[in-house]
Amino acid sequence: MTELHQQIAYVLELDKLKAVQRKTRVMADGNRQENSAEHSWHISLLAQVMQQYAAEPVDIQRVTSMLLIHDIVEIDAGDLFAFACQEDLAAQEIKEHDAALRIFGLLPVEQGAATRALWLEFEQAQSADARFAKAMDRVLPVLQNMDNNGGSWALYGVQKQQVLLRNSYLQVLAPKLWDYVCQQVELAVQKGWLIQ
Amino acid sequence: MTELHQQIAYVLELDKLKAVQRKTRVMADGNRQENSAEHSWHISLLAQVMQQYAAEPVDIQRVTSMLLIHDIVEIDAGDLFAFACQEDLAAQEIKEHDAALRIFGLLPVEQGAATRALWLEFEQAQSADARFAKAMDRVLPVLQNMDNNGGSWALYGVQKQQVLLRNSYLQVLAPKLWDYVCQQVELAVQKGWLIQ
Repeated sequence: MTELHQQIAYVLELDKLKAVQRKTRVMADGNRQENSAEHSWHISLLAQVMQQYAAEPVDIQRVTSMLLIHDIVEIDAGDLFAFACQEDLAAQEIKEHDAALRIFGLLPVEQGAATRALWLEFEQAQSADARFAKAMDRVLPVLQNMDNNGGSWALYGVQKQQVLLRNSYLQVLAPKLWDYVCQQVELAVQKGWLIQ
Repeated sequence: MTELHQQIAYVLELDKLKAVQRKTRVMADGNRQENSAEHSWHISLLAQVMQQYAAEPVDIQRVTSMLLIHDIVEIDAGDLFAFACQEDLAAQEIKEHDAALRIFGLLPVEQGAATRALWLEFEQAQSADARFAKAMDRVLPVLQNMDNNGGSWALYGVQKQQVLLRNSYLQVLAPKLWDYVCQQVELAVQKGWLIQ
């Protein structure tokens, strides 16, 4: 198989991420569940729009590349709700590492290894770029749920502290966005969308 | 309205692109129609994976940014089939320019103007980056349709020459990909997925 054929096999494999359902809802499309492919597009743009709020400069190209690939492992591992229990999260991590080996392994060797390394950097929050990327992945559902009557928070009985903990990267990385999230979370409690 | 509130309004507006249906089908998800948000994610990754085939170096960060935003105007204008008649294409162009003013106009002034300029550069194929981005937008349906028994080509009776013309940017920009497309198009004719 030539390099080009390997790359095409990888690109076609990516199509399957469009079938992975998340808990977040798309209000504009009959309140259906969002899939991980369109979500990855949305947070890539969010990062580009919000880069000015990064307390330290980030390399937006690397951040974008991480966000484009960060959920590809879900093709094999599926999406796990952000507020799942620790046991489920640990099992998911193993599945995702296996998936990274298989899916990025479809690419030519060097390209696959570089892509897997970038995914791992994101996954383990090993750099400022990775932490900013993770913060973007976590803040978008705050915006979406606030715009959709509490969305997945209200549906699944999520607590205020869970959302704050999940977004706490922002506190150091992007204080202005952190302040905004804190305000929104208070508002969500008042509206009964998050549990106090 | 603060800058941040303008940016959030824009990011939430983007959700609507997930409801814009294209003619291409997602085989992995019950052969449903693809939406323009997940398509934008897919071609952004395609460009990153295939950048080595660019005959002249391209700035992959700019290419990616263009591909992420290139279809946002469809929130107002809708998606038009690639092989529509000239009259429909001309009407679509007007709608898309109006949409660019409205949607990118949700952003703070400078950011909105820069985003609209990037979209226009793509739209008018004004640079090597824009032409490479356009080529990626056009070559992905070739891969998808070949993987899906002819997909939208077979459904809508598309001709071989239409596909070749649409992909002709590749001839100069990425000759190796052009050769691949030409082979695939011949194969599609043999299989009865494209009209000779």
